[in-house]
Amino acid sequence: MDLLDRMRTGDTVALGRLISRAEAGVDEARGALAAIYKSTGKAHIVGITGVPGSGKSTLVSRLVQAIRTDGRRVGVIAIDPSSPFSGGSILGDRIRMTDLVLDPGVFIRSMATRGATGGLAGATLAAADILDAGGFDVIIIETVGVGQDEVEIARLADATVVVLVPGMGDDVQAIKAGIMEIADVFVINKADLPGPERLEREIKAMQSLSTRKDGWVPPIVRTVATENQGIGEILAAARSFLERGNRKDRAVANWSLRLREMLRERLLHRFADVDFQAAAEEVASRRNDPYTIIDGWIRRISN
Amino acid sequence: MDLLDRMRTGDTVALGRLISRAEAGVDEARGALAAIYKSTGKAHIVGITGVPGSGKSTLVSRLVQAIRTDGRRVGVIAIDPSSPFSGGSILGDRIRMTDLVLDPGVFIRSMATRGATGGLAGATLAAADILDAGGFDVIIIETVGVGQDEVEIARLADATVVVLVPGMGDDVQAIKAGIMEIADVFVINKADLPGPERLEREIKAMQSLSTRKDGWVPPIVRTVATENQGIGEILAAARSFLERGNRKDRAVANWSLRLREMLRERLLHRFADVDFQAAAEEVASRRNDPYTIIDGWIRRISN
Repeated sequence: MDLLDRMRTGDTVALGRLISRAEAGVDEARGALAAIYKSTGKAHIVGITGVPGSGKSTLVSRLVQAIRTDGRRVGVIAIDPSSPFSGGSILGDRIRMTDLVLDPGVFIRSMATRGATGGLAGATLAAADILDAGGFDVIIIETVGVGQDEVEIARLADATVVVLVPGMGDDVQAIKAGIMEIADVFVINKADLPGPERLEREIKAMQSLSTRKDGWVPPIVRTVATENQGIGEILAAARSFLERGNRKDRAVANWSLRLREMLRERLLHRFADVDFQAAAEEVASRRNDPYTIIDGWIRRISN
Repeated sequence: MDLLDRMRTGDTVALGRLISRAEAGVDEARGALAAIYKSTGKAHIVGITGVPGSGKSTLVSRLVQAIRTDGRRVGVIAIDPSSPFSGGSILGDRIRMTDLVLDPGVFIRSMATRGATGGLAGATLAAADILDAGGFDVIIIETVGVGQDEVEIARLADATVVVLVPGMGDDVQAIKAGIMEIADVFVINKADLPGPERLEREIKAMQSLSTRKDGWVPPIVRTVATENQGIGEILAAARSFLERGNRKDRAVANWSLRLREMLRERLLHRFADVDFQAAAEEVASRRNDPYTIIDGWIRRISN
C-alpha cells in the first residue's frame, strides 16, 4: 500500500511522511498533492497569529482541548519557532502537552520551511490539504507576528484569529495595517493584565476607519488562556464567521491570488540558478544589454 | 535612414518616435532598445518626486533653466499627470513654458503608461535610455507621490530628489517609509510659508532613526521655486551625491533587482490571457487541483 492509501485509512505515520515530502519541495510532491486535492474542503482551517509574548501557544492548546471535547479531530501546524508545538519553550505553561501529543485525535506538526522551495505558504498549504484529506475536522495554523508570510498564510485559512495583549501601546499602531487586513476575530489575551479596555478602544478605533468588503466586523474576545477563560467565546466567534456562508467566495478570491503566486514560484524555480548579480554587472558596465539577457533566459524555458 | 540612425544624428522627431514605440510595448521595441543600450550611461538621471501641491513642476522648470545656462542638454520625462509638462494645469506658474519647449537643448516628454505592457517603470527606463543614447546630458524623471511606482522609478535614477512643503504635518509620517528609502536629496519648497523649521526637524528625526547602507546623509535644501531661490543648491547637492563615485555600485544593485522584475514581467506577459478567476473557481469547487492547473500553464511556454 502506498503512502496515499495508508493515509486514507487513517495512518498518521503515512500522513506525517507525506507532509515531510511536501515540505522538502512542493514541486516534487505535487503528484500526490494533486491526487488528494479533490478529497479536501471538508476541514475548517483556522489561522492563529499573534505577537511574541501574547500567550498564543497556551491559547492554541486550550482551543485544541475544547475542540476535542466535541469529539472533532484537530490538526495543528505550528510555524512559530517559539511555540511549544515547534519544540520551543513551554516554561510556565500549565497544560500537559503530553495529553495532546498522546491523543490520536490530535496531530501536531511544526514547519521549519522558511526559505524552502515553493515557500512557507506553499508548504503550509500542502500540509493543510494533507490533514484535510486525512479526515481532520479542524486545522489550526499557528504563526507569529503579522508580516508578509502571515498575510500569505491568512489567505489559506477559512478564518484568522489575531491575538493581542493589553499594554502593547504603540505596537498596535505599528502592526495596524497587517492586522486590519487579516483578522476575522480579535483576541485580547491576558485580559487580567491592566489595560484591556484601552486596547479594545484602539482596535475599535481602527475598525471605524475602514469597512471590510464582506461587511464583517471582527468581534473582539477577551481571554485568560492560562485560566481557560474565554476559549468557548473564541470558538463561537469563529463559528459565527464561518457560518456566514461566504466561505466559497473567500476561497475563490484567495485562490485567484494564490494561483498567480504559485505560477510565479514555479516559474522562478526554473531560474533558481541564474546569477542575477553577475548579469547586473554586465548590464551596469554596458558589456551587455538587459533585453538580450532576458531573451536568453526566456529561451531556456521555451525549448 | 532608420529611426535609430536618425536619432543618433540628433533628430529629436526620430527620438520621440522611438519613445512612443517603447511606450506602446517594451517587448516589441526591445530590438531597438538592445541596440542603443551600449551607447547609454553617459547621462545623469535625476528622479524628482513630491506630493501634489509641493510646487514640484515649477521647481523642475527652474532646474531645467539652470542646467541650460551651463549649456547641458536636458530631457524631462513627466509621469505626474498634473505636471504642466504632461499638459496639466500651469495656473499661477510664472515660467514661460514656451521658452523651454522651443529650446532645442530641451526635450520634454510626458508618459501616460500606467498599466501599459511592461509597466510604467519599464517604459520610463526605455525612454531614459533613448534620451541618454540621444546625447542628453541630464535626464529628469518627474513623478508624483511616493508609492510603489515611485520607488521603482527611483531605482532607475542616479539620484532622487524628494520635494516636500511646510505644513504637511502628519503626511510626512504617512509617507515616511517610502521617502526614507528613495530620497538622496530632500527639498523643502515654498520655504517662505510658515513651518520649514518643523519639517526640517521631522526629516532629521527620521534620518536619525536609520543609517543608509552607503553612509550618505541626504542633505535638506530649502527653496522658493517661484522666486528662483535655492535652485543652485539643489544642483550642488545632487552633484555632491553623484560625485561620490559609487554610481557603479548603485547601478549594479539596481540592475540586480530590475533584471528580476523585467524577467517577471516578460514571463507574466506570456500568461496575460489566463483567466485566473475561472481557474480559482475550478480549484475552490474541487473540480480541479491547483497543481494540475499550474502544470498546464507551464506546458504552454515549455513547447
